[in-house]
Amino acid sequence: MKGEVPVKAKVHVTLKTGVLDPQGKAVQNALGALGFGGVNGVRQGKYIELDLAETDADAARVHVEDMCKKLLANTVIENYAIEIAD
Amino acid sequence: MKGEVPVKAKVHVTLKTGVLDPQGKAVQNALGALGFGGVNGVRQGKYIELDLAETDADAARVHVEDMCKKLLANTVIENYAIEIAD
Repeated sequence: MKGEVPVKAKVHVTLKTGVLDPQGKAVQNALGALGFGGVNGVRQGKYIELDLAETDADAARVHVEDMCKKLLANTVIENYAIEIAD
Repeated sequence: MKGEVPVKAKVHVTLKTGVLDPQGKAVQNALGALGFGGVNGVRQGKYIELDLAETDADAARVHVEDMCKKLLANTVIENYAIEIAD
């Protein structure tokens, strides 16, 4: 898929299943303290939007995957998902 | 829409346009230092997954919207988007 429009990439970085999420736990406790019941679990991750100069979606995906592995995600404990929108 | 399955809510919290994003800027600089060119902008937000006891999607959305206003997002500088999946 090729286009003239620069590609926008959306990356979700989330903790792998089984990895403790103290930040999510804190949010869950805070929600409980505010009176919000019925919250069985909270997991917090990162959401990163990248404006790329690249106009080719496939090439952009390869670049962003590389960025995730090298900087954006800690692949020992985190998963990442890439969404390309142009 | 009613179901028997507990609802999962996905919340994106992002900085409003015009609000400086030093975290995103740091990521952008780090990507540049690693040799990733062609990155024109990076914005970093939060991604929160909530496991709710609620089984009704519409009721869940109302609850989660309330949570966003009261705790999850700082509505002065942040936008939030709610996605309900069951």
